[in-house]
Amino acid sequence: MLKQISFLCLLGALQPAFAQTDDEKFIRKIFDEALLNGKAYEMLDVLCRNIGPRLSGSPGAAAAVEYTRQVMQQHGLDTVWLQPVNVPHWVRGTAETGRIIKPRQHTSQAVNICALGGSVGTGPAGIIAPVVEVRSWGELKKLGEQGKLKGKIVFLNRPMDAALLQTFAAYGAAVDQRANGASEAARYGALAVLVRSMSPNPEDYPHTGSLRYAPNIPKIPAAALATNHADLLSRLLVDEPGLEFYLEMHCQTLPDAPSHNVIGELRGSEYPRNFIVAGGHLDSWDLGQGAHDDGAGCVQAIEALRLLKVLGYRPRNTLRAVMFMNEENGLRGGLEYARAANENNEVHLAAIESDRGGFVPRGFTVPALADARAKVQSWKYLFEPYGLHDFDTPGGGADISPLAPQGVPLMGLLPDSQRYFSYHHSAEDTFDKVDRRELALGAAAMAAMLYLIDKYGLK
Amino acid sequence: MLKQISFLCLLGALQPAFAQTDDEKFIRKIFDEALLNGKAYEMLDVLCRNIGPRLSGSPGAAAAVEYTRQVMQQHGLDTVWLQPVNVPHWVRGTAETGRIIKPRQHTSQAVNICALGGSVGTGPAGIIAPVVEVRSWGELKKLGEQGKLKGKIVFLNRPMDAALLQTFAAYGAAVDQRANGASEAARYGALAVLVRSMSPNPEDYPHTGSLRYAPNIPKIPAAALATNHADLLSRLLVDEPGLEFYLEMHCQTLPDAPSHNVIGELRGSEYPRNFIVAGGHLDSWDLGQGAHDDGAGCVQAIEALRLLKVLGYRPRNTLRAVMFMNEENGLRGGLEYARAANENNEVHLAAIESDRGGFVPRGFTVPALADARAKVQSWKYLFEPYGLHDFDTPGGGADISPLAPQGVPLMGLLPDSQRYFSYHHSAEDTFDKVDRRELALGAAAMAAMLYLIDKYGLK
Repeated sequence: MLKQISFLCLLGALQPAFAQTDDEKFIRKIFDEALLNGKAYEMLDVLCRNIGPRLSGSPGAAAAVEYTRQVMQQHGLDTVWLQPVNVPHWVRGTAETGRIIKPRQHTSQAVNICALGGSVGTGPAGIIAPVVEVRSWGELKKLGEQGKLKGKIVFLNRPMDAALLQTFAAYGAAVDQRANGASEAARYGALAVLVRSMSPNPEDYPHTGSLRYAPNIPKIPAAALATNHADLLSRLLVDEPGLEFYLEMHCQTLPDAPSHNVIGELRGSEYPRNFIVAGGHLDSWDLGQGAHDDGAGCVQAIEALRLLKVLGYRPRNTLRAVMFMNEENGLRGGLEYARAANENNEVHLAAIESDRGGFVPRGFTVPALADARAKVQSWKYLFEPYGLHDFDTPGGGADISPLAPQGVPLMGLLPDSQRYFSYHHSAEDTFDKVDRRELALGAAAMAAMLYLIDKYGLK
Repeated sequence: MLKQISFLCLLGALQPAFAQTDDEKFIRKIFDEALLNGKAYEMLDVLCRNIGPRLSGSPGAAAAVEYTRQVMQQHGLDTVWLQPVNVPHWVRGTAETGRIIKPRQHTSQAVNICALGGSVGTGPAGIIAPVVEVRSWGELKKLGEQGKLKGKIVFLNRPMDAALLQTFAAYGAAVDQRANGASEAARYGALAVLVRSMSPNPEDYPHTGSLRYAPNIPKIPAAALATNHADLLSRLLVDEPGLEFYLEMHCQTLPDAPSHNVIGELRGSEYPRNFIVAGGHLDSWDLGQGAHDDGAGCVQAIEALRLLKVLGYRPRNTLRAVMFMNEENGLRGGLEYARAANENNEVHLAAIESDRGGFVPRGFTVPALADARAKVQSWKYLFEPYGLHDFDTPGGGADISPLAPQGVPLMGLLPDSQRYFSYHHSAEDTFDKVDRRELALGAAAMAAMLYLIDKYGLK
């Protein structure tokens, strides 16, 4: 008997039995409230179907700033405020056209393209030129040095690896084509680039996304091509290497526009100048409704604070829901947030981003810092009853990454990623692709993580 | 050094190191083939969008029998054959109508209903009667014994518990209303029943599903009511207890119809008279396209065999893909399969059903038999790299359940269940709700499980 008692005492020393039970109970309450009375889905409906796309500088982005400000006030957060930030203002313009021209047959065929974000336009006459397909940077360099890209449209057609279970890794291994393809091809005198859409699936619709023009290289137009049409073009090029392509796009970059991050707070009762951030980005690409990318993350951040408030939790530290502006084509919101935090000597205990879609949560990406990571991993058992098992991948999110130099532990909600790149940056990223329960579970998981960090810290 | 060698030998005795590596490699090949060259999604497209709904006895069901027979032949299975089975033949008939009648306001309001499968019709004049809401069997019995249900429409409105993470458990705890509500209300003289749709979500569309009429009780019409309209009706009843409801349905049960299970085999090289089954059910409800329920399971079973065949795997035992007919309203296919297996002295080493939707796989339900379960659980590490962690829930599936008396270990593919009841048995169960990669991962997981059972057995 004595032995048993000392064993229990030892256990108690390692993991306070009553505190553990309280945590389990409170986290159960969070998930119950999210599943039974959650507001995330209704908020996302407004962002997606009433407001719609929210590219930086657009009227939709301004409406989203105002809506999230209002809805955070309605949900009774202690403070809601706007943090001004100037953002790039790129517009797609009117109809975009892509056609495969078959000189031998005297025919042509329309294919589905869209301008990459930040691309220059083609001018009203469009561009028509022979197509050269490349699948690697080495191939591009070789052809370029042989003078074979000059006056051509370069077609970057290295697919995402569909065999990778980690779809974000497959994306990371292919997206350099979208980011750098235009300038790499322009070095060798190419007139434009077509980039295979970033999706592992055969699809008829293109996926946009930002590009980066290198300094001192001519800016040439860059378009994404639907994966099915990339495969078609590639097959046709085998039969007829003299194929040409007609590209017409009217996109342009306007002067920077004024915008805002939107920040809502539950004020800390003990350490009001210590902050824990839950965030997503409010801007979205213009083709869909920005449902999974990243309306979902925004409403989950708001919902996480609402859940804690409605359950009567009084945080020790100040909890912030941050709607970052301009993740997609500039990161200005994230940069400004970090700059201001530094200037104001704000202490950030942690930042959690949700920017991997509103799918069923499978875990969290964890801080790179070993101590903080171990602390997060010690809470894994509290999340397992809700289907979250994956606490092994280090990482945060783009918007919170500028906080890294301040030593802030960065984390991310980690939803199932299998569907994400079917919708990402395309016209298919719409509200109907989001499931109410999956969205709610993600919000609840974020609320639970905020609660644990607030209560125990990450040191 | 010697110590290390003996330690390695000991490990080797417990788990042969080379065999393990071979298994990991072969399972990686299965997943690669499914993700890169999978056919499940294209097969499901035909079942859903070309053929459409496949209720037992319908032309769609006959087309699905013929299509799956052909496609299994095209994929080169060794034998494909039809197993005759007579099935119930219920038809919904023409337009169904549900209206809330507000005598006090002299107005009425249309709501979305559908007949439950197997229900009798109302006759051309419909039924109009006051509504009595009940939320428990106790309440129904009490009101019935007080004579308060006589001549009434009984409204069974106990919701699925949205707070349960296990949505199938929530379904199981509510579906007794749909199954037994009509006869329980008819015992007390009710004229018809309305049953709250089996969904945890607020929705405008109803979910059908089968009912069971008890013997020697009058058969009364039974309809499902969309959850939003169930909530509406419940609120209106508080204000105006004298509300009536108008129900008109033209459904009827025709004589049994001839149909078939469709069975494809990869013949065993060592034990051709030992069988391992992978199955789904080919019939579906008539409102949607039977995409998740259970076109997904059918094409995953076919795909599992195709994957093994195309990778050159020669099974020791005979592997069968079985498309069961009539799971939804009779289970005649499953019963006939088990009867014939018994009659023919077939030895079934295991049966695996996929009938929980084509969502991202989270694990397998495992055999109730302890030895077989332990064997399956010992393979868990082989599935974890593909996101399958859950090997704890005992269970098989409805179609394979008649094999239980023969001592067959029964299992099921266990996909994520959060979205399932948003679509289940409704007009929303359509092809666009299925993700190519999620479907492929489930098929690959089934192929991997067939491979392991074939190679190692379950004893």
